[in-house]
Amino acid sequence: MTGYSLLTPGSHRSAGALEDAALVGAMLQVEVAWLRALARVGAVDSDLAGQVAKVTQDWEVDMAALAAESEAAGNAVVPLVRLFQEAVGQDAARVVHRGLTSQDVVDTALVLLARDALVRMGDDLAATSRALAALAGRHRSTLMVGRTLTQHAVPITFGLKAAQWLAGVLDAVAQVDDILGTLPVQCGGAAGTLALVGELTDEPLAAARAFADELALDWPGVPWHTNRSVITRIGSAVVSTCDALGVVAADVSTLSRPEIGELREGTVAGRGGSSTMPHKRNPVLSVLIRSVALQAPLLGAQLHLAAAQAVDERPDGAWHSEWPALVRLLEAGVTSASQAAELTAGLEVDGKRMGDRVAAAADELLSERGGGGKPVDYLGSTDAFIDTVLARVPEGRAAHG
Amino acid sequence: MTGYSLLTPGSHRSAGALEDAALVGAMLQVEVAWLRALARVGAVDSDLAGQVAKVTQDWEVDMAALAAESEAAGNAVVPLVRLFQEAVGQDAARVVHRGLTSQDVVDTALVLLARDALVRMGDDLAATSRALAALAGRHRSTLMVGRTLTQHAVPITFGLKAAQWLAGVLDAVAQVDDILGTLPVQCGGAAGTLALVGELTDEPLAAARAFADELALDWPGVPWHTNRSVITRIGSAVVSTCDALGVVAADVSTLSRPEIGELREGTVAGRGGSSTMPHKRNPVLSVLIRSVALQAPLLGAQLHLAAAQAVDERPDGAWHSEWPALVRLLEAGVTSASQAAELTAGLEVDGKRMGDRVAAAADELLSERGGGGKPVDYLGSTDAFIDTVLARVPEGRAAHG
Amino acid sequence: MTGYSLLTPGSHRSAGALEDAALVGAMLQVEVAWLRALARVGAVDSDLAGQVAKVTQDWEVDMAALAAESEAAGNAVVPLVRLFQEAVGQDAARVVHRGLTSQDVVDTALVLLARDALVRMGDDLAATSRALAALAGRHRSTLMVGRTLTQHAVPITFGLKAAQWLAGVLDAVAQVDDILGTLPVQCGGAAGTLALVGELTDEPLAAARAFADELALDWPGVPWHTNRSVITRIGSAVVSTCDALGVVAADVSTLSRPEIGELREGTVAGRGGSSTMPHKRNPVLSVLIRSVALQAPLLGAQLHLAAAQAVDERPDGAWHSEWPALVRLLEAGVTSASQAAELTAGLEVDGKRMGDRVAAAADELLSERGGGGKPVDYLGSTDAFIDTVLARVPEGRAAHG
Amino acid sequence: MTGYSLLTPGSHRSAGALEDAALVGAMLQVEVAWLRALARVGAVDSDLAGQVAKVTQDWEVDMAALAAESEAAGNAVVPLVRLFQEAVGQDAARVVHRGLTSQDVVDTALVLLARDALVRMGDDLAATSRALAALAGRHRSTLMVGRTLTQHAVPITFGLKAAQWLAGVLDAVAQVDDILGTLPVQCGGAAGTLALVGELTDEPLAAARAFADELALDWPGVPWHTNRSVITRIGSAVVSTCDALGVVAADVSTLSRPEIGELREGTVAGRGGSSTMPHKRNPVLSVLIRSVALQAPLLGAQLHLAAAQAVDERPDGAWHSEWPALVRLLEAGVTSASQAAELTAGLEVDGKRMGDRVAAAADELLSERGGGGKPVDYLGSTDAFIDTVLARVPEGRAAHG
Repeated sequence: MTGYSLLTPGSHRSAGALEDAALVGAMLQVEVAWLRALARVGAVDSDLAGQVAKVTQDWEVDMAALAAESEAAGNAVVPLVRLFQEAVGQDAARVVHRGLTSQDVVDTALVLLARDALVRMGDDLAATSRALAALAGRHRSTLMVGRTLTQHAVPITFGLKAAQWLAGVLDAVAQVDDILGTLPVQCGGAAGTLALVGELTDEPLAAARAFADELALDWPGVPWHTNRSVITRIGSAVVSTCDALGVVAADVSTLSRPEIGELREGTVAGRGGSSTMPHKRNPVLSVLIRSVALQAPLLGAQLHLAAAQAVDERPDGAWHSEWPALVRLLEAGVTSASQAAELTAGLEVDGKRMGDRVAAAADELLSERGGGGKPVDYLGSTDAFIDTVLARVPEGRAAHG
Repeated sequence: MTGYSLLTPGSHRSAGALEDAALVGAMLQVEVAWLRALARVGAVDSDLAGQVAKVTQDWEVDMAALAAESEAAGNAVVPLVRLFQEAVGQDAARVVHRGLTSQDVVDTALVLLARDALVRMGDDLAATSRALAALAGRHRSTLMVGRTLTQHAVPITFGLKAAQWLAGVLDAVAQVDDILGTLPVQCGGAAGTLALVGELTDEPLAAARAFADELALDWPGVPWHTNRSVITRIGSAVVSTCDALGVVAADVSTLSRPEIGELREGTVAGRGGSSTMPHKRNPVLSVLIRSVALQAPLLGAQLHLAAAQAVDERPDGAWHSEWPALVRLLEAGVTSASQAAELTAGLEVDGKRMGDRVAAAADELLSERGGGGKPVDYLGSTDAFIDTVLARVPEGRAAHG
Repeated sequence: MTGYSLLTPGSHRSAGALEDAALVGAMLQVEVAWLRALARVGAVDSDLAGQVAKVTQDWEVDMAALAAESEAAGNAVVPLVRLFQEAVGQDAARVVHRGLTSQDVVDTALVLLARDALVRMGDDLAATSRALAALAGRHRSTLMVGRTLTQHAVPITFGLKAAQWLAGVLDAVAQVDDILGTLPVQCGGAAGTLALVGELTDEPLAAARAFADELALDWPGVPWHTNRSVITRIGSAVVSTCDALGVVAADVSTLSRPEIGELREGTVAGRGGSSTMPHKRNPVLSVLIRSVALQAPLLGAQLHLAAAQAVDERPDGAWHSEWPALVRLLEAGVTSASQAAELTAGLEVDGKRMGDRVAAAADELLSERGGGGKPVDYLGSTDAFIDTVLARVPEGRAAHG
Repeated sequence: MTGYSLLTPGSHRSAGALEDAALVGAMLQVEVAWLRALARVGAVDSDLAGQVAKVTQDWEVDMAALAAESEAAGNAVVPLVRLFQEAVGQDAARVVHRGLTSQDVVDTALVLLARDALVRMGDDLAATSRALAALAGRHRSTLMVGRTLTQHAVPITFGLKAAQWLAGVLDAVAQVDDILGTLPVQCGGAAGTLALVGELTDEPLAAARAFADELALDWPGVPWHTNRSVITRIGSAVVSTCDALGVVAADVSTLSRPEIGELREGTVAGRGGSSTMPHKRNPVLSVLIRSVALQAPLLGAQLHLAAAQAVDERPDGAWHSEWPALVRLLEAGVTSASQAAELTAGLEVDGKRMGDRVAAAADELLSERGGGGKPVDYLGSTDAFIDTVLARVPEGRAAHG
């Protein structure tokens, strides 16, 4: 994985977050954190830990060779550790990775990547929320047709639509924040007993806690090799994000149809062009966000399928099936949130066209009421609903990290 | 739907919870609650509300006809309301359903069904937790082989395995409790503005709050016709439940293989028999729980797919695609939890066979350590991990409802 | 399952095809066919087979009890056979089901249900094809705007759109016909060796062939207990059908938006009404077909997931996870095809509105060409493409059965 | 995408097939083929086509930049064509891509990649078939226990098991061959009418046919921008392949459990090792094949979901959602088939252990028969079934390409 792909347009927005290089970096960070943790409980010399940490700074690994060798062990840790042990010198080699199992390293490294990705995603969701709040406020009274099952129903305002989009995004943010607050290390050794760690120190649990501390992660109290709720909850937060953004994109896409023309993606030089038709301005960000929203649910399901089959003390395939789905899902979430922040910041609202349509359809829009009056007088609790959602937007959002 | 099906063995365990009859009951309960809410804000005569409530007690509807007529409107509310209006008399007919839209009724009714199902599921998860806690305590020191990627790794105890199962179940319980605490009514009218309710009363939001109160649900502050996180969160809780139970079942199924023979489902007359082989005792509950664990992830994904496409003020198909998946998922969760409670309560543990295998494989199990010593001395933090999980089990679980 | 459900509007269209009663009927038909097959190879008295067949004609089974008892064996065959043996008398009881395993009966019975469902679906697809062919012919020259990524592209005709819909439906029909031509019996006994049958007759394969012949199914040469391509191919044909119909429905739904208004579902008294807004005419059939098209892919995936885990000689859960997905998918396919036949037969095309829009957007529609000329002169190979698709429509379609 | 990833162990086996570089190569091949096709109908100078073809030989494009720019157009064709036009000189620039739309290029390029992948996969499936046929023949009479729902059932032979695996693989091969025989070009222009091509030549359909001919693909008679059965059929063939291989892997994984020990993956230096336990020999290929078999069904479902939403003349997101799933699925299929060829070629069969277990379990294995006799005499039609499957193996398999 290289952090971009021609077939996932926009994935340059997640550059640096989820490539193989980032994974290797995270795995080395895990190995160093573990050494430091062992040093903190007196199981290894702290100089040695520092020395190994230094090696990681310039160490480069042949990624293609590493990938090829990953097959023999079923994961990348075995060859990585072997190569790394050669790099750190004989003394350090004896302690590097000592006490951990491959899954401890891969799981913790993926949690680190997930944390970075979720923070990036969260920042863009916060920006999206601010943009939507601004739209909800600015267009609080911008009348538009409410549509149900594709047909005209009763009047709403565009501010209410933006507020509803916002409500969805805020629900997703809550899930992201929730999971960010509880991300754990994986630390169990070969079969989740920390038996080998118990040979290195009398305080294996202290080592586990120190390990978590080094990485600013939680120590969950027990290993979770076969209890994958950490992974499925990460997945759920990202899928829910894509759901919420997908609704925004679907609406923008629909309301950008020329016959409706009430919304339009912001103008950016070169964007939305066609390879053959110069006049076209495709709602590209919406199209790409929608595309991801169609994919995220199945990626999330993949994580659950793996979770449900985590047999034995470490399973024979289910665990491995998590990886591509998790990384692809995180990449999609980061990309989509970044695109959504841009989409909502630049969204062009044609209030006049909305209003004209309401005026033209007034009879229909008031038929529920029994006719009479004006659409503007048939907005019910629109204002109150906008206020309720706006009240949920945090003033500023604390930085994660 | 009839509450059982030959093709979902065990579904009689969810009888009464999710059939069409239960749905009709819930929809009528919603309509009555709405009338009472309108009465509480003075919009309709409270006698009328009482009168209508009385009608629902004996009223029977031709379910097949209702189902057939549901197609014309796309949902069951339109024909149900029409038939019900005929039953309540002319005066009441004028106010029944007034101000609501079909989606208010279906969504709220499904939330009511979900609540009942989640409570039933939660009760069985609590029973399962107690059974697993008992197993973890009783077999805290019952040595067994730890297995990873199907091969022997290092020693564990069966108590640790039971504790890990328990950790998964407790994570699921936390999700179930979380969602049970926040289940909302749906109340928005035709396009989510409560416009028609605003014609009936000066206090439409008070009516919405009273509606929620009548049903002991939350008033979420805004309608959620197109923000489906309520539904996806319900789904996520049930899928996570099936994940956790699936792990238990997969392990029991594997460890019941004759060549391993360390676990066995409890004996129940007539269960596990073969149609042709009298000696067989199939791990039937495990098989069925596993089967559901393979299905739940895709049902949950279906809910997300619908959520991501909730276009307009009410969508053209996405909403409808939620229904069968949600109901099937809830039914599967209720059934699986009930089966799991029985499975874990009756599980037969062959500690001797576990111990004999450990003894026979001792050299392998200690190879990580460099050999020497006994398996019982190479259990690391097993005890501490068991304690950590057991400490999470609530003493007793407050009843929901 | 009852053949209808309030939450799958339109499922009355598949009444009789996939309910539990139909399954029991099919299972009894399988048991009788097997007895007749054994009689044909001389393994049982042919009078006995006839006698048993007669019993099935009036025999009724308590469905709820049968469902509940299905759990103990993991499937419905064990209790059904036991009850049925009581009904046929002692002599016959000794031979009923002799040599078969539960999976032989369930698989073959599901194939029988699938055949009926596919034939019904195929008939409605044929009707849909004829309706689409008529639309393609009638509107061969009805100019309309071609839309890509929601925006206006170049001109097309509605006839071309109808022809493209038709091409999708014909591809699905080809898959349905293909699978209908090769549906097999399942016949393997306990572990796929026909060992017990070999005790009853010297010609077990002749019995298997006779069994297939009795049911007008293929004898595939070997049992397929763990090779589930029969099931996944059935699934694929139905999902592909729902894909093709989903495209039609999505287009109709979009083009029925009031702002576009180029298509409209046919008027049927009472259809498309809203519970609160008298003027609305929702595109209900399209909504429901779209809803199913969002569900079918995951149901098909469920079948593949089961197939991929068909471990041992008969698996521990994977097989069971096929059933609800297969039956729900078949029901959805039958319902959708029936709805599509009605939708396409009654579709109202507003050629004038299409033409007016083309005229208004002529400059844009010709911009690719560099401007100049008229939309009607920029249709490229539209006519030829329509002809190509129409040439694929069979004159009449042979009845299946 | 780089053709390998640390998180898809084994993906080096598909190197060169599905990376971004391969896609760019295929897209250029498509553009050149189109120019040659235009030359063949006299619409452009054939020297020009040759000149452009020459440019592609050394032309290198900045992949990261291309990926980043792909977002603005929603796909890679627009920036690629622009850059390529700069490279070919002014005269050629005027005709490059002329008449095509982005989707023509991406779809056809993906079909080319799919063809290569399917051929590679097919070759490895052929090798797998030969290996399985050899196992079925060699172990025709190697007695083993038949297992159903994890328990001992009746005797089989390992030859029968291998034959059943083979039957699954042959069914997959049939699907692969079927789709390889009908892979089409995509050629429709902006909205599927070839209107612009009609400006370049009087024979647009001849150009389309020549285009197909240049690429050795079929001309399907009409564009398939919104009829995605080509893509879903490719997907179905690969998923079915992964299903069949998944069954082999699940069985090998189970039968490699130390307590069973009847099968073992072939010894390869360094493979199957653990990061901490020197004695372990994990069934790595099986684990990885199983892992893919758990993923393929959802990737296939993604293609159907896209197909079902191919609205308008080219859709707003559904098409884009196909790409990552299709490429990942093809990569997984190629990798899995290669692994399966190696797994089956090297599989170690412990016939003695199989036989000992049969002897020990003889009473159980014969209980269906009513006891008596020997397991070897209770094999029913095992031999005939093996013969039936072996008869399906083609002597040699014609090369594709």
